[in-house]
Amino acid sequence: MKINKNYLALEDSYLFSTIAKKVKAYAEKNPDKKIIRLGIGDVTLPLCSASVEAMKKAADEQGTKANFHGYGPEQGYDFLKEAIKAYYAENSVALEADEIFVSDGAKSDLGNILDIFSKDNVVLIPNPVYPVYLDTNVMDGRKITYMDANEENGFLPMPDPSVNVDIIYICSPNNPTGAVYTKEQLAEWVAYALKNDAVILFDAAYEAFITDSSLPRSIYEVEGAKKCAIEFCSLSKTAGFTGTRCGYTIVPMEVKKEDTSLNKLWLRRQTTKFNGVSYVVQRGAEAVFTKEGREQVKIATAYYQKNAQVITETMKELGVWFVGGVNSPYIWIKVPEGMTSWEYFDYLLENKNIVGTPGSGFGKNGEGFFRLTAFGDADLTKEAMERLKSK
Amino acid sequence: MKINKNYLALEDSYLFSTIAKKVKAYAEKNPDKKIIRLGIGDVTLPLCSASVEAMKKAADEQGTKANFHGYGPEQGYDFLKEAIKAYYAENSVALEADEIFVSDGAKSDLGNILDIFSKDNVVLIPNPVYPVYLDTNVMDGRKITYMDANEENGFLPMPDPSVNVDIIYICSPNNPTGAVYTKEQLAEWVAYALKNDAVILFDAAYEAFITDSSLPRSIYEVEGAKKCAIEFCSLSKTAGFTGTRCGYTIVPMEVKKEDTSLNKLWLRRQTTKFNGVSYVVQRGAEAVFTKEGREQVKIATAYYQKNAQVITETMKELGVWFVGGVNSPYIWIKVPEGMTSWEYFDYLLENKNIVGTPGSGFGKNGEGFFRLTAFGDADLTKEAMERLKSK
Repeated sequence: MKINKNYLALEDSYLFSTIAKKVKAYAEKNPDKKIIRLGIGDVTLPLCSASVEAMKKAADEQGTKANFHGYGPEQGYDFLKEAIKAYYAENSVALEADEIFVSDGAKSDLGNILDIFSKDNVVLIPNPVYPVYLDTNVMDGRKITYMDANEENGFLPMPDPSVNVDIIYICSPNNPTGAVYTKEQLAEWVAYALKNDAVILFDAAYEAFITDSSLPRSIYEVEGAKKCAIEFCSLSKTAGFTGTRCGYTIVPMEVKKEDTSLNKLWLRRQTTKFNGVSYVVQRGAEAVFTKEGREQVKIATAYYQKNAQVITETMKELGVWFVGGVNSPYIWIKVPEGMTSWEYFDYLLENKNIVGTPGSGFGKNGEGFFRLTAFGDADLTKEAMERLKSK
Repeated sequence: MKINKNYLALEDSYLFSTIAKKVKAYAEKNPDKKIIRLGIGDVTLPLCSASVEAMKKAADEQGTKANFHGYGPEQGYDFLKEAIKAYYAENSVALEADEIFVSDGAKSDLGNILDIFSKDNVVLIPNPVYPVYLDTNVMDGRKITYMDANEENGFLPMPDPSVNVDIIYICSPNNPTGAVYTKEQLAEWVAYALKNDAVILFDAAYEAFITDSSLPRSIYEVEGAKKCAIEFCSLSKTAGFTGTRCGYTIVPMEVKKEDTSLNKLWLRRQTTKFNGVSYVVQRGAEAVFTKEGREQVKIATAYYQKNAQVITETMKELGVWFVGGVNSPYIWIKVPEGMTSWEYFDYLLENKNIVGTPGSGFGKNGEGFFRLTAFGDADLTKEAMERLKSK
């Protein structure tokens, strides 16, 4: 018996474990210091009460013979798909219910979608990047090419017409940089994908943070995208579902490759290797899209957006170059001249007792940069910024 | 861009859609007839109150900042892994917590586990079989061989020493036949796998139905199995979780192939392509393993077991050959001489107004057999058996 040897080519990431070790060692040596964590990628505010009540009601239903729900449709219940459809309609994106696949999160779907593509495809990944795009393709042995995201292009790389690729990853608002593509920029990517018979895997996990109404929340706001793009979204950051687990993936009926509907392939993949999201969780997700739920989650998003504003205002005051923070929970700052990302990490930890994430952990183009996040406590975020401003 | 062409080799299964169509057509023509469904593979009794209360409490926790749970470990929370560990210990199977991977169900894991194996492996699948084993391997383009389950071997095929395979599927208690391997028979399979450097994928989804204490509930009750077997289990049938979604997969530390720990490969797969089961659902699952939960789910299992007994007693009375029904929710009966599975389906529907599942839908060796299930209503199951006994 043979293992999948591509797994042996995976590089172990020590990014977050190294951070944890360094913080632990410092805290043990300096028990009197108050460390503020601005490196966290998880939400900290609770679920909205609409979701909590909906889940409790659904749990009660599961306890009665009359209202019990056994196996549901693998693609998700109609009540949730209709809610998602209505949400997209607000941005003038018309979806059919059968184009929506409810899942346990964008991370699962971003990995599993590769099942329906040949291993022979060439992949294009931005650098720096969310590590899952890279690792899932290494597992399949696909050829990976990179596009450079850097200070010159504002961490928003554009297509290179001289390069031909098959699978393109775009994350906007971006993790880790917080940069957001405009509609015109995405239109260039769509045109490139259509010309090259490529598929765009569009990660929209942070769309809820977009406040500028001219920026696209969905790639389907761009004409032609339904012919070449699959969109991944989740309630993790929209509604604090990181531990509750519900997302959705849009595979338009029009995306066809080699005369085959990708929607049909993904449906077959999900009906064969997945059994749907918990009924209880789907009811909690549905509640997010109600009037009450929408108002409640907006308050949480506004809380994080305020944190982001506190950070970006401090960076402006200090004359630090950054992207993100507006329309995004991530702020990607340039570290002081002559320092590496890790040196700046050590400096911040030891001198300001602030924890962030070294940009080099997300790829070579992250070197010299540093990620701060808006998911922390408001008072602590303010305190951290005061520390940065003080000598 | 190229699709995964293996998907085009998948055969569409029309089994359950054909059944639904036939039943609908008959019901429309005969609105006065009371149709009893004994074909259902889903549970019909509600969740136990211990699980319902635990999920409601967990949902409340998710609604408070102090008790909120964001991203959890991809492999599951320790509280649930410890409960599963204790459950296995009752059958003298000692597991380490790191050998247990909590998931959203056995179907997902049975499909996803193939990620860690080379496409070059040869697969051995029983026939008749749960279609997922076959389809997930067709998707990967693996060479598939079959072992015949039939009347002669009591639908419990044993290893053929002249054949060399890499991945072996065993489901016991079996779906669709209800047949259960003895410890001695599983020991032969373990010996075969060890000799051939093969991996056994052991589907234990129906272990809760085993009442005969001499029969193994886990393959790890057999010596040596920890060196060659991965076990899949779920709370779907144990505790009515078909729509609530929680299962677990055991990958022992000792299973090594090509000097690589399969546990480490699966951990890498799950941390990269999965983000854990909902905290709320994991609390509901934990409750199943409490003293209170155990007592409650036993009542539901006993209810289904009673249905199975009503069916098997009727078959004995009628002199019909069958396997299963004892230690299993499925009863696999031989159809009357000269009839095909589908002909018997039509006969039962039209003459007795009973719906079952034609055995031929599970593979060629299912021809001439028919699956009845114990998951229906007790009174209706009795009524159906009375109808079978009446002329």
